[in-house]
Amino acid sequence: MRLRNKPWAKAKLKEYADFVIQEPEQHRGKWGEVFTKDQPLHIEIGTGKGQFITGMAKANPDMNYIGIELQESVIVSALDRLIEENLPNCKLMNVNGAELAKYFTSGDVSRIYLNFSDPWPKTRHEKRRLTFASFLKVYESILVKNGEIHFKTDNQGLFEYSLISFSHYGMKLNYLSLDLHNSDYEGNIMTEYEEKFSLRGSRIFRCEVQFMSK
Amino acid sequence: MRLRNKPWAKAKLKEYADFVIQEPEQHRGKWGEVFTKDQPLHIEIGTGKGQFITGMAKANPDMNYIGIELQESVIVSALDRLIEENLPNCKLMNVNGAELAKYFTSGDVSRIYLNFSDPWPKTRHEKRRLTFASFLKVYESILVKNGEIHFKTDNQGLFEYSLISFSHYGMKLNYLSLDLHNSDYEGNIMTEYEEKFSLRGSRIFRCEVQFMSK
Ligand SMILES: C[S@@+](CC[C@H](N)C(=O)[O-])C[C@H]1O[C@@H](n2cnc3c(N)ncnc32)[C@H](O)[C@@H]1O
Ligand SMILES: C[S@@+](CC[C@H](N)C(=O)[O-])C[C@H]1O[C@@H](n2cnc3c(N)ncnc32)[C@H](O)[C@@H]1O
Repeated sequence: MRLRNKPWAKAKLKEYADFVIQEPEQHRGKWGEVFTKDQPLHIEIGTGKGQFITGMAKANPDMNYIGIELQESVIVSALDRLIEENLPNCKLMNVNGAELAKYFTSGDVSRIYLNFSDPWPKTRHEKRRLTFASFLKVYESILVKNGEIHFKTDNQGLFEYSLISFSHYGMKLNYLSLDLHNSDYEGNIMTEYEEKFSLRGSRIFRCEVQFMSK
Repeated sequence: MRLRNKPWAKAKLKEYADFVIQEPEQHRGKWGEVFTKDQPLHIEIGTGKGQFITGMAKANPDMNYIGIELQESVIVSALDRLIEENLPNCKLMNVNGAELAKYFTSGDVSRIYLNFSDPWPKTRHEKRRLTFASFLKVYESILVKNGEIHFKTDNQGLFEYSLISFSHYGMKLNYLSLDLHNSDYEGNIMTEYEEKFSLRGSRIFRCEVQFMSK
C-alpha cells in the first residue's frame, strides 16, 4: 500500500476510541463486551482502507467484525469510512497480525479473512507472508475449533504458495475458485485492491481452508 | 476424445502382445517381470494417443511406464507410436482405471499420472471424474506408501474440484502451478490435449499430491 506520511494519524486513532480498539489485550477472552451485541467475531488481517470489513459488517449485522491493520497511515482511511458509516458491529485495531495471540485467546475468533496480502515474492522473505506456517499457528490458536480462513488475492505466486502452506499445515480445502469474478460465488464484497486489479484484467483467486482439530 | 469406429482395433491390440499387456491380472505383485528391467513403475490413466507416456519413457530410461486407456479405438494410436519407438520401458493396457485394484497390488505402482482427464462437468456425473474419492481409494491401494499423483489439465472446474477432493481425502499438496507454461517448471512433457489447448491460449493447471500414510 502506498504510504503518505501522516504524522497526525496516531493522534486521530487515539481520539476515536469508539471505533479503534485502544488496549486490545484487555479484551482477551471477552470480545463480546466491545460490541453492542455479543455475537461471532470475524477479523480481517491487513484490512487496508477498510472497504471489505465495513462492507461485510453492513451486509451481516449478526456478526461482529474487526479490521486489523499494521500501518497507521493506512488504517486512518478505514477509520474515516467507519466514522461515516457508524456501524455498531465493526471496529479497527492497529496491531501486527503476527502478534494476535496477545489479544485473542482460543475460540475468540470465528473466522479470519486475508485479502490481497502482501506477496513477498522473494524466497528469503517467505516468513513475512501472512500464510507462512508461523502465522497459521497464531491463527489456529485464536480461532474456534475447526475455524476457517477465507483468502483471496490476484497474486498467483502467493496463492500457489498459500495452498501448499495450508495443506502442509494439515488444513482442509473447502472452497476454491481460480477465477472468482467469473464464478457463481454470490455475495462477494470487493476490497480496494480487488477493484483495482480486476479492472486491470487480473484474475482473482479465492479459497476457504479449515483447521482440523488434532 | 473423438471416436472413429475401428473394428480392427481389438485384433491389433491382441497381435502386439509385446507392447499391449494381454492378461494384466497375471502380473499382479510382480510387474518387474513384464519389462526388460525391474525398476519403479509409473502409470498414466487415460493415456489417449500416448504422446506423454512414450515421451516420459524416452526421457527416463530408469523408470518403467504403463499407459492405461479404456478406449480401443484411441489406444491403437498409442500402440502405433510404441511400435515406431520400440521402447523397452513402456507398455500399454486397455482397461478401466476404476478397476486397477484387479491388476495391481499395494506398492506395485510408484506414481500415477492423470492428464487432461475427462471433466464430467455435471454434478450428477461427479463419480465418473478420475479424481473422485472412489478412484482415489483405488489409487491409494496400488501405490507405494506416500505415493504421489501428478495431475494436469486445462479444465478449471475439474482442477478446482480435484484439489478439494484430494484435500478431503487427506492428501497433501506438494506442488502447484496455476499457469504451467509460464512457470519455471522444467522438463514438462506435453500431451496431445495440452498441445491443442495451450495453442488455443488456455492456461494449464498442474499439481502433485501425496497420499499420507495413516
Ligand atoms: C496489499 S494491501 C491489501 C489491503 C486490502 N486487504 C485490500 O485488499 O485492498 C496489504 C495490507 O496488509 C497490511 N499488513 C501487512 N502485514 C501485516 C501484518 N503483519 N499485520 C497487519 N497488517 C499487515 C499492509 O500494511 C497493507 O495495508
Ligand atoms: C480428454 S482425453 C486426454 C488424453 C490424454 N491424456 C491427453 O492429455 O492428451 C481422456 C482420456 O481418458 C480416457 N479415460 C476416461 N476414463 C477412463 C478410465 N476410467 N480408464 C481409462 N481411461 C479412461 C478416455 O478414453 C480418453 O482417451
